Order: sequence, then C-alpha cells, then structure tokens
Amino acid sequence: MPYRAPVSDYEFLFDKVVGFQQVVATERFSDATPDVVGAILTEAGKMCEEVIAPLQRNGDLHPARLENGIVRTSPGFAEGWRAIAEGGWIGISGDVEYGGMGLPMTVTTAVNEMMAAACIALQLAPLMSQGQIEALEHHASDELKALYLPKLMSGEWTGTMNLTEPQAGSDVGALSTKAEPNGDGTYAITGQKIYISWGDHDVADNVCHLVLARLPDGPKGTKGISLFLVPKRIPDADGKAGVANSLKVVSLEHKMGLHGSPTAVMQYDGATGWLIGEEHDGMAAMFTMMNNARLGVGGQGIGVAEGAYQHALAYALDRKQGRSYHGYTIAAHADVRRMLTTMKADIFAARAIALSCAVAIDMETATGEPDWAARAALLTPITKAFGTDTGVDLANMGVQVHGGMGFIEETGAAQYARDVRVTTIYEGTNGIQAMDLVVRKMMDGGEAASQLLDEIEAHAEAARDVLPEMAEAVWQAKETLREATEWLVAQDDVNDRFAGAVPYLRAFARVLGGHFHLMAAMADKGGPREHLARFYIERMLPEHVGLLAHAQRGSDGIYALSLDDLVA
Amino acid sequence: MPYRAPVSDYEFLFDKVVGFQQVVATERFSDATPDVVGAILTEAGKMCEEVIAPLQRNGDLHPARLENGIVRTSPGFAEGWRAIAEGGWIGISGDVEYGGMGLPMTVTTAVNEMMAAACIALQLAPLMSQGQIEALEHHASDELKALYLPKLMSGEWTGTMNLTEPQAGSDVGALSTKAEPNGDGTYAITGQKIYISWGDHDVADNVCHLVLARLPDGPKGTKGISLFLVPKRIPDADGKAGVANSLKVVSLEHKMGLHGSPTAVMQYDGATGWLIGEEHDGMAAMFTMMNNARLGVGGQGIGVAEGAYQHALAYALDRKQGRSYHGYTIAAHADVRRMLTTMKADIFAARAIALSCAVAIDMETATGEPDWAARAALLTPITKAFGTDTGVDLANMGVQVHGGMGFIEETGAAQYARDVRVTTIYEGTNGIQAMDLVVRKMMDGGEAASQLLDEIEAHAEAARDVLPEMAEAVWQAKETLREATEWLVAQDDVNDRFAGAVPYLRAFARVLGGHFHLMAAMADKGGPREHLARFYIERMLPEHVGLLAHAQRGSDGIYALSLDDLVA
Repeated sequence: MPYRAPVSDYEFLFDKVVGFQQVVATERFSDATPDVVGAILTEAGKMCEEVIAPLQRNGDLHPARLENGIVRTSPGFAEGWRAIAEGGWIGISGDVEYGGMGLPMTVTTAVNEMMAAACIALQLAPLMSQGQIEALEHHASDELKALYLPKLMSGEWTGTMNLTEPQAGSDVGALSTKAEPNGDGTYAITGQKIYISWGDHDVADNVCHLVLARLPDGPKGTKGISLFLVPKRIPDADGKAGVANSLKVVSLEHKMGLHGSPTAVMQYDGATGWLIGEEHDGMAAMFTMMNNARLGVGGQGIGVAEGAYQHALAYALDRKQGRSYHGYTIAAHADVRRMLTTMKADIFAARAIALSCAVAIDMETATGEPDWAARAALLTPITKAFGTDTGVDLANMGVQVHGGMGFIEETGAAQYARDVRVTTIYEGTNGIQAMDLVVRKMMDGGEAASQLLDEIEAHAEAARDVLPEMAEAVWQAKETLREATEWLVAQDDVNDRFAGAVPYLRAFARVLGGHFHLMAAMADKGGPREHLARFYIERMLPEHVGLLAHAQRGSDGIYALSLDDLVA
Repeated sequence: MPYRAPVSDYEFLFDKVVGFQQVVATERFSDATPDVVGAILTEAGKMCEEVIAPLQRNGDLHPARLENGIVRTSPGFAEGWRAIAEGGWIGISGDVEYGGMGLPMTVTTAVNEMMAAACIALQLAPLMSQGQIEALEHHASDELKALYLPKLMSGEWTGTMNLTEPQAGSDVGALSTKAEPNGDGTYAITGQKIYISWGDHDVADNVCHLVLARLPDGPKGTKGISLFLVPKRIPDADGKAGVANSLKVVSLEHKMGLHGSPTAVMQYDGATGWLIGEEHDGMAAMFTMMNNARLGVGGQGIGVAEGAYQHALAYALDRKQGRSYHGYTIAAHADVRRMLTTMKADIFAARAIALSCAVAIDMETATGEPDWAARAALLTPITKAFGTDTGVDLANMGVQVHGGMGFIEETGAAQYARDVRVTTIYEGTNGIQAMDLVVRKMMDGGEAASQLLDEIEAHAEAARDVLPEMAEAVWQAKETLREATEWLVAQDDVNDRFAGAVPYLRAFARVLGGHFHLMAAMADKGGPREHLARFYIERMLPEHVGLLAHAQRGSDGIYALSLDDLVA
C-alpha cells in the first residue's frame, strides 16, 4: 500500500484557504513563491513516497533496541535519516547563515506532515532536531550557535528535549535534576530524565540533549529552572564529536506503538552542559521549543490520519463484499462511504488549522506584529490537540473500514492506531493544551479569539449570496462559539474554565473547520471541494452544539461526585 | 492493580432501573430472587477478582501459539477455564435438563461482563460456548442435545462459530464451504473458515464447531445455507471425544490485541458434520447464536470499559502531579475528573442498556409476548454497538488519564485499548448493527421504537416534579429522537437510512442513557447517582443534537463526492 503525497492539497490550501500570499508578500519570505514552494513540496513528497514510506513496517516489526548501552535503530532507518538530512528537510525553516533554507514554517509544516504520514517513528527524529534548532537560534550564544546549528541542520548530529522526570511530567516545575557550575563556564548536570524520544541511536554521530535542570540557587517551581545543552559526545577543538560525556541510556520503553522511535530513560552523572539563555530562565527557551514542537506534533496527527485514510481507501476500493446501489466494493456502501468522507473532511479541517497556525507564526516572524503573535499562540494548542485527536480518531476509523482485517497486524491499519496514540499525550497532553487555551490564551480577555471570530463572521457574510445554507450554518456556529467564549472569559475561578476546556477546544476546531471548508467551497463552486464542505458543514459541524453545552457547565458538577463516589 | 467486581451496581440496576422484578414475577424465572441473584453475582465476582483478573497480562505477554498443529494457550488459561466451568458460569442460562442453571439471561449478562472486565481474551471462550448452547437448545435434535449440551455446559468441551470466509464476511451469503450428504445422516464439510475465536486450544477435550455451509442443491445467497455441528474429535459410543475429524488449524492470526484468544484459520477437508435445524435454514439457527453473541459482545465492551476505568481511577488516585483547589493527586484536576466521571457515566448508560436488553430477552422467553421479542430485537444492535464503542472510547480515555504511562505497555492501560478494539468489528461490525437497527428493526414502521420512546416520555413526565431540569432535558431529547425516527421510517430508499445509521444508533443510546440515568437519580435523590445522572444529562446527553442532525441528511451528500474525488 504505497503512500501518495497530497501535494496538490497543500497547494490549494496555501493559495485559497490559509492566506499564504501574505507570507510571500513579506520581505522576509519573498523567495517562497508558488513555484519554489511547489518544487519543494514535490521533491519532499517524492522522498516520502519512495524512501520513507517503505520503512514504516520495519520500525514496527523491528523496534529500536538497547545493546550494551548503545541503541540500534530499525533496519533502514539510518538510510532514511540520511535521505531526510541530505534533502535539507531538517533545516527548511532554519537560518540560512547556519545552513538552513530560511523558508516559512508553513512549508516546514507541510513537509513534516508528509514525513509523518510516511513513517512517524522516523519523522520524530527531525522534528526533535527542528525544535532544538529553533531554541538555539533564539537563545544560545553565537559561539554555541556556530558550533551546533550547522551540524543539527545537516543531520550530522541530532537533537532531543529532556523535560520529564518520574515525578515531574505535566508539572515541569517539580523537576529535581541539578546543575552545578564547574567554574569554567560549563555546568555539571546530574539527574534522570524519562520519555526522551530519540534519546540515543546509531543514525548520526552525536546526540545533543537540551536538558532542564535547577541551579543550586534556583528557586522552587518553574522560575528556578535553567536550560542546558548536553551533548552525548563533547565537541573537540575542530568541532567534531569527541570524548563521551557522563551520560547514558538506562533503558528503552516498551510502548504501544512508535516502536521505531527509541524512547529512552536518560541518566546524567555530572555530565558537562552549556547554559542556553539566562540562568533560571529555562522555561522561556523551552517554550520556544515546545511551541514549535506542539505545531509539529499536531502535524504528526494529521499526517498519520492521512496515511490511515489512504490505507483504508485503498482497501475499500479493492475489497468486494455485498451489493449496493452504487457498485460492488465496500467503498460503495453508504456507511463505509460515510467513514471515508468523514476522514477526508476532518483531515482537511485539521490541516487547514495547522497551516493557518504556521502562517501566523511566519507573519509574526516577518512582521513582529503582536496580533500575529497572538493568533499563533491561540492556534497552537488547537492545532496540537485537534490534529492529534484527529489522528487517533481517524486511525481508529481506518481500522473499522478494514473490518476484521483491521485487527490483524499484517494489514498495517492497526499500526497507525498504535503509533499515533501517544501524540495526544506528549508535548503536553491534550488536556493541558485545552487548559492553555482557556486560561493563558484568554488572558487578553478573549481578544485574539474574538478577532478570529470576526474574520469567520465576515467571510460567512461574504459567502451568503453564493452558498447561503452553508454560510448561515457557519455564521450560527461562530455565534454559538462566541457566546461560549464570552462565558468562559467571564469565569474567575479557573476550574470553571478547566472543567469544559477539552470540549471547548474541540468545538473551536469544529467551527474553524467549517470556516475553512466554506472557503474551499467558495473556491471550488460546484466541484468536489464544495461537496466535501457540504458534508462537513451539514453532518460534522453540528457536533459543536453538544460540545459547547458541555463547555459552559463549570466545575460544580465535576466535583459533585466525590473521589469516594467514583471509587464506589 | 486488582479488579473489583461492581456487584452493588448490578443489584441497583436490577432493582431500580431495568425492571428485573418483572422477570422474577414470571413462573419461568421465579427462582431468581434478589437473594439468589445477589449470591450468584457475589460468587462470580469473587472468581473474577481472584482467579481470572490475574490472567489478564499473561494472555497479552504470552499469546496463544500454534505448535505442530496444536494450539497452546497462555499460562494459567487452562486453570482459569476450569474455574469458570466448575463455577457453572458457562451454563448459567442453560437448560436445567442438560446441566444448566436455568437462570435469566440478565444474570448471565452481568456475570459475562465481570469475566470480560477481568480477562476478555479468556472470557471469549465461554461466550462462544454459550452461543452454541443456545443454538443447539433451539435447533438441534434431541439426540444431539443429549450428547453435546451437558459437555458444553460443564466445560468438558467448548464451542465455536464458523461463519466468515475470506470472501464472505459481512456478506455471509457469499460463502463457498460445501456440505455433501454422506448417506448415513451425516455430511462431509469442505472449505476454509477464518477468524475462528478459540478455534483450537488445550483447555478442554473437544472443540465443537458450528459451521455454515452450502448443500449441493442450496440456492445462492443466505437462503441456501445450512448449519452443521462439526466436532474436532468425533464422539465415540460412550459420548467421549473419540477419533480425530478431518479438520485442522491452518494458522493463528497475529492481532492488535486479545493475544490470549487463539484466532484460527480452519480448514475442513470432508469433515464429518451433523445438520442443525433444517436444510437451507442455517441462517435461522445462526441468528439465534448471533443475537446471543451480540448481547455478549456488547457486554465485553462494557466489561473492558469497567476494567479500564478502575485501572485509570487507581492511577489517578495515586499519581501526584501539580496542585489544584481540591488536592494533590491528578484525580483532583478538573480535566482528569471530567474524564473519570465521563467514564463512570457512560459505563452506567451502556450497562443499563445491555441489562434492559437482557430483561427483554428473558421476558420474551418467559411470556412469549411479541412486544418483548420486538423490544429485545430493537435493543440488541444498540447494546452491541454502543457497548463496544463505549469499550473502545473509554479504554482510550483510560490511556489518556495515565498520561505518558498510558503509552507504556507495562501499565496495562494500553492492553485494554488493544484488546477491546476488535469488539466493534466482530459479530457484525457496528456499521452492520446500525443498518440492522434502521432497516430490519424498523420493518414494523418504527412501532417498537415508538413504544420505547413512549415509556421514556412517561417516565420523564413522572419525574418532572422531583427533578424538573433533568426530566425536561430527557423529555426534549426523546422528542428529537422521535422526530428523527419518524424521518428515517419515512425513507423508502434504504441508503437514505444507511447514510445516517451509525449516528442515529449512537443518539438512540445517548437518549436511552439519559432515561436510565434519570431513573437512577429518582431512586437516589441527593445521592451520588443523582450527581452522576446530572453530569451525564447536562454534559453528555447534548451530543444527540449533532448526531441526529447528521442522521437525517440522507445519502445524496454521501455520494456527491465520487470515488475518484475521494482518491484525488
């Protein structure tokens, strides 16, 4: 079952839906013309189809393993990594001064999604490096940048994120890893970190760990955390990977999926590290990295959804079973057709949200305008949570389309469901994303959300003459979302916001999806994109009603049932 | 993480929600007094907690395997099977004449659910035997009943169902397995069957296969299918398992979960079989077995949901992370509390639906009244689909409650999600269940559905004085469902019903859940069951609005997007 890169979908979205023209119109990104972007997406898509997708099953069947302290990756992964590195796909949005292409994050988002669709376990490696690259670009000294960035962008070295500890997950501030000054400008890092994706491997010469730790005088909580760059092998005078640092892989996790991605428990025993950013200010740098990673993880969900969709569609077009009014394969059956169309419609919605988030990031980068920063900040948790929920839901639906064969591992349908399952958890669980949306991202009194709703409203009104029913449905949904947003913002007790945060975020995504589908329908009047939009707006958008009813109930009803009642 | 049998929940449901008193009031089931039922549930629960639950991980870690043509089951499964057999839990509802307890199916449903919660892979074995027992009781000759039923009920022998072939899954009528008369009253069965749960094993002396096959003069389609009993070892003159029959296990499937349950490809090479029921009338007997199995599979979903819930709750009560207004474990966080309460509320709803389906079956058995038969027929697909969707959704939510640990296999949370995944597929996919609901179960013009809606309406009106808001919400939801039902019944093109069948079925279950929660609230005014009901009715019941909007759109919008458009 070969993967086919949906390049024309991205081009349509760039051009007609997410307003990529604005990005190209800036001086910063004026090189990213449609021709250039088209060529890049085509080239990256070709690699994903021909080189990366064939590795997908290898990762599952031959997991990364720890042998005498060294991680051996799945067959073919080293070659896959080299193809990604040599294509320049790690540093697409990296600074040209250090070997990057300097292209918009919107382009990176599309390329990352294709790589994730082809083989998410391998794609997690460049995604981790990209996050580190962005953190170093913004917060590292010029010396460290000159030493590390070219190696990370070329793929000679790779990057990781080390946040979590056994008793410090969502609550990062509870971490206990220590950093002590060595007196020579470096620091000695000691502690244990868990869930380190691609924490070690044999695909490149060095592994550069960004590690959160606390200095001796660091206050408790997140305000006492600093960020350190801790390479597996310390660079020598020539900038090559030199002697081994005092760190090791303790073990690899045995996971539900994503077997090709080594998830390490890392032990640091006085390992030499270099401070990134200011002392006690590690969270700022970490947030740079996490925001990038959250958009990236949302894209992973969408990529896997696309892979699962193509897989299920191919099966449905091939599998003969029963009769219907429209043909003899199961794709002709109304309920199977409902599932396939649902998948296609939700992939479009989630992809449009992710790309519009990336456009906002690019506009923030190019213009520095706070409105774009606020838009990017607002869309990041929605992109992450809805993208990954879509990945989980659609991979699951892909299994269902396969019927009995979906439960049999040989078909590969189940692997999508197992692999993608972690994406709703890592980089901040989707619950954390929703809490971020209803509290931190609403500290402006809901202004950023309101501006976005104004845009949806204006577009729906403009569409009314052409597609009156669909425009009206989107307008109404937007209004219901606006009322719920105003209700949330008016709640002083954050728990009243938290109680409905997850359904609120999903409803927000549903309404955004309606907006973007309506744009697509306007651009393809009478064509398949209008049909798809109608399916979404008539059948899927109404989900927001129940979600927003849930979102406005507050926390009393959540705590009315005591913990003892839950146990009973 | 020990499993705790929710016996008091069943007792509450029997007594206050699903009207089990009606069953006990019949002559047929007059022995099933509260004391007797309580003792049985307690005893079965104890076995599930102490003997069955400890086998759960064994099945996953040490899958059943095929060695030289013989299936070896997971460590401890043989002992687990013996405990189930010796407890009499296979023949709870079996005819007393053949060694059964003759108790209501309602009791069997509760016991089966507990066994599934403890270890679904093992529980699938007695579930298969129970289906066979019921088919033989209704359709086999007295001679075959006398020979086979005591052995099946005592657990000396086990039963299987053989329907599916590579090109005949949901479309059973396409099967090609042949049966030819041997001239001595037996038949020679030849063909291949796939997905045979517990198709072979080493836990009992014989495996009795019920096989669908076509006689030489059998017309095409389902009307030419006959049912045969084909034992692995042919009974000798003393009724003991004798010489080997001409059948074998070709292979076992490598599945996403349920590793402890051997799923076999079976090959029949002129195997000796005995006709069950009339020639060409195999579907009637098969439907007896399938209806039983559909209720049973719905119960599997609910059982796994309960297991996943208890697992997640124990983790949430233990895991310390962050602070909140209400405490320091993650169970205190509003979003985790939302997930846990959602799980508890949906388990209650799904369990009430399954038990009320079982009550209808028992009333049909005891009274022969067609209204009860129609009620049972209506509730069977809802029980199966909603029970198993709840299993999949809640096992998934249980993983989410665990955060990063949910993705690590050692915690066991992921196993629930992998194991339960097949339940929305086997015994008729949930799409097939929904199609059955909107066409076959509405051939009465919606009369059975309408009667049930009348009951919901009457109860909501009676509850209005006591719990006005909740009663009004249920009343309104029922009315919306009634309108949708009338719309469906009015559609002549079945594809217009099929297109919205799955969302319609789910909405039906949502409304039923509201009804049963309202009954619970009335019986526990001011208590935890009222709080749980309020959570469900305020936050979860509104989902029906979006679902029913979807359900009434018909098939035009499904087929507007062509297969080529889906591929593009």
